[in-house]
Amino acid sequence: MSRIPESSPPVATTVRWRAVDTDVHHQLRDISDLRPYLSRYDWQRLDEYGMPRNSNLYQANGGFRGARADCFGAGNNVDPRTRLDLFQEKLLDGCGIDAAILQGEYTPAVMALADIDFAASLCRALNDWTLAEWVGRDSRFRLALAIPIQDPALAVKEIHRLGGHPAVVAVYAVCGSPRLYGQRYYDPVYAACSDHGLAFALHFSNEGIGMNPAPTAGGHPSYYAETYLLRPQFYQAHLSSLLFEGTFEKFPQLKVALLESGFGWVPAFRWRADATWKSLRAQTPWVKRPPSEYIRKHVRFATQPFEDPEPAAALASVLDGMNADETLMFSSDFPHWDFDPPDAIARRLPAGIRDRVMFETALETYPKLSR
Amino acid sequence: MSRIPESSPPVATTVRWRAVDTDVHHQLRDISDLRPYLSRYDWQRLDEYGMPRNSNLYQANGGFRGARADCFGAGNNVDPRTRLDLFQEKLLDGCGIDAAILQGEYTPAVMALADIDFAASLCRALNDWTLAEWVGRDSRFRLALAIPIQDPALAVKEIHRLGGHPAVVAVYAVCGSPRLYGQRYYDPVYAACSDHGLAFALHFSNEGIGMNPAPTAGGHPSYYAETYLLRPQFYQAHLSSLLFEGTFEKFPQLKVALLESGFGWVPAFRWRADATWKSLRAQTPWVKRPPSEYIRKHVRFATQPFEDPEPAAALASVLDGMNADETLMFSSDFPHWDFDPPDAIARRLPAGIRDRVMFETALETYPKLSR
Repeated sequence: MSRIPESSPPVATTVRWRAVDTDVHHQLRDISDLRPYLSRYDWQRLDEYGMPRNSNLYQANGGFRGARADCFGAGNNVDPRTRLDLFQEKLLDGCGIDAAILQGEYTPAVMALADIDFAASLCRALNDWTLAEWVGRDSRFRLALAIPIQDPALAVKEIHRLGGHPAVVAVYAVCGSPRLYGQRYYDPVYAACSDHGLAFALHFSNEGIGMNPAPTAGGHPSYYAETYLLRPQFYQAHLSSLLFEGTFEKFPQLKVALLESGFGWVPAFRWRADATWKSLRAQTPWVKRPPSEYIRKHVRFATQPFEDPEPAAALASVLDGMNADETLMFSSDFPHWDFDPPDAIARRLPAGIRDRVMFETALETYPKLSR
Repeated sequence: MSRIPESSPPVATTVRWRAVDTDVHHQLRDISDLRPYLSRYDWQRLDEYGMPRNSNLYQANGGFRGARADCFGAGNNVDPRTRLDLFQEKLLDGCGIDAAILQGEYTPAVMALADIDFAASLCRALNDWTLAEWVGRDSRFRLALAIPIQDPALAVKEIHRLGGHPAVVAVYAVCGSPRLYGQRYYDPVYAACSDHGLAFALHFSNEGIGMNPAPTAGGHPSYYAETYLLRPQFYQAHLSSLLFEGTFEKFPQLKVALLESGFGWVPAFRWRADATWKSLRAQTPWVKRPPSEYIRKHVRFATQPFEDPEPAAALASVLDGMNADETLMFSSDFPHWDFDPPDAIARRLPAGIRDRVMFETALETYPKLSR
C-alpha cells in the first residue's frame, strides 16, 4: 500500500490495510432470508410476488400471485397460465367456452424491448410455439398475434407471415406505448390487419415502463390499486387518437377490440367525444362523422371486469348509452384473479342482448372465427 | 481561404469564396408575410393563434383565440381576459353573479417554470397585483391563490403569507405535474390549506409541457380536440392518488374542487373506485372507507363544460350517481369559448338541487366566501 506524504504522525491501528474494493455484489439465497427482518404484512407481499425487478413498478396484484387461488392445484409455484390442461378443465369444458382467444402473458414484455430485431424474433418464436403447443392441441384456442409494434415494418412482416393462418384472428397491442395508436406511423399495421381480416386487440400493460411515458399526466401512481382504477384512461387516449386522426376513415374495415378496459366509462366518453367534435371539428376536417358513429361501427369492448354500478339500476343506462347490443363482447380474463365466469355474466345481461354479447358480436369482430 | 492539399486540379468557378457562416437567424416582420404561402385553412389557424412557440404543443383552441367572439368589442388584439370592465358588464352584472373566484390565466405557465425561486416571486407579485387591481376594485371577486407548487415549502410560505386575506378562498394547482397530488411530498400544502380553510382547486393545464410527463400513457395526442376530450383523465389520476394515498384521512377538513373537468365521468369512476378498493384494500390499509364516501365528503366538481348526455334523459342518472346535490358547483369559465351562462345551467338542473348547485355547495366548499 503506497502512502500519501505524511503531514501528521500516523494514527496507531491494529488493522493492516491491504485493499478496499468499493463495489461487490451479494445476493439472498432465497427471499425467505428476509422473513425475520420484515413485518408479517410486508413478508406476505414479498412471498406472493417475489423481489422487485427493475422494471416492476407495482409489486402487488390481486388474488394469489395475480391469479385465482383455486388455480394453484399443481402447487403454489406452478404458474396456472402455463397449464393447458387447467384451461381445458376449468374454462373450456368447465364453463362451456366454444372459442377462446389467447393473449399471451409473455407479449407485453416483448413489446417493451428497445432492441426491435430481437423483439421481432421473440414474437415469431412465441407465435409459432403457441400455434404448435396450444392451438395445435385444442382447436378451441385462437391466437391474437404478438407483433413487434415498436417497428411497424417488422410488425407488418409478422402479420403477413401468419395472418393467413386459420387460428390467427387478431393482433395484440398494449396501451403503454411511446405513441398513440391513431398516429399515421402505425397505418401500415392497420393496412395489414385489414388485408387479413384481423381485429386490432388492445390490452393494458407496459404503461410507464421501458421507453414508454408515465401512465398519467401527473406521473406514476404509487399503488397497483390506482393503476387498476385508472385503466380506462389508457384506452381512452388511444381511442381518442384513432378517432381524431381519422384512422377509421382510412381503414373502413378495421375493428378495434378494447380488452379488460371495463365499459362503464363508454357512454360519458362517447357523448363528450361528440360534443368535442361538434365544437372543434373545423380543426380535424378529415373526421367526417360524430365519434360515436365510428365507435359503434369499429370499436368493441370486452365485458371483464364487469361493472358494478351504484345504484345497480344504472347498468341499464350504461348498456343503453354504449349500444351494448352492437359493441359489448364477453371475456373472462382467465385465470387472473378478477376472472368473470360466463354464466354469471350471462345472467347479468338483459335477455334481449345476451346472445349478442356472449358470442354474436365476437363472431362479427373477429370474422375469421366463423370461417 | 486556406486550402487542403490538392489531390486533383481545382474546378473552375466564378464565385470567390471568403467564408461560410453556418448558423444565422432571420425572422418574419409579421405573420402576414406567410399568408401568400399558406392555404386559406392554415392561414386562418395561424392568424388566430400566432406562430407556434416552443412550449405551445397545440396551436389551436376553440372560439376566437380561445374566447367567445362577442368578447372582442375592444378590438381583436385586446385580450378579453385582461378587461375587468368586461367581466363586470358581461358576467357579474350581465349574468347576476354574486361572487366569482379568479383562477388567473397567467398561473399555469408560472407553475411550469423550472426555476422555483423565480416562480415563487412571480406568484407573490401576481397575487398582490390581483388583490390590488381586481379584488380591490370589485368586491365580488375572490382569488384562488397562485402557488409555486413545484416546491411545497415555498408554496406553504405563500399560503401563510396571504391565506388569511378575506378574499383568498382557495389555492390553485394544475393537473400537469411531475407527481400526483396525493403523494406525501405535497402534504405540507394540504396542512396549510387546512390551517386557513382554503379549498385546493385543481384545473387542467401544463400536461405534457415543461418538465411534466406526457399527457397520456401513449404519449402526446396530435390535436387540441383530443386534449379536450381526454381532460377528465388528468383529474382522475390526481383524484385516484388523493384517495389511495389516504390524503383525506390525513386532512379531514380538506376540500378539493375539480374545475373544468366535466362531470359525466364521475359515477362510473366512483363505482370502479369502490370495486377496486373492495378487492385490493389489503394493499392500502390506510384507506379506511370506500372511495365514494371520501368523494362525497371532500371532492367537488364544477359544472362547466356542462354535459350533453345521449340520450338526454341520462343526465338524471349522472346527477344521481354523483350525488350532485352535495358535489356539483356552478362555474362559467368566462370568457373562454365554451362559457356556460348561469341561467342556461340553472334551467337544466332539477328544481330540487338548483340552489345547491348554483351557490350552496360553493359556500360550503369555500367557507371563507361567507365569512
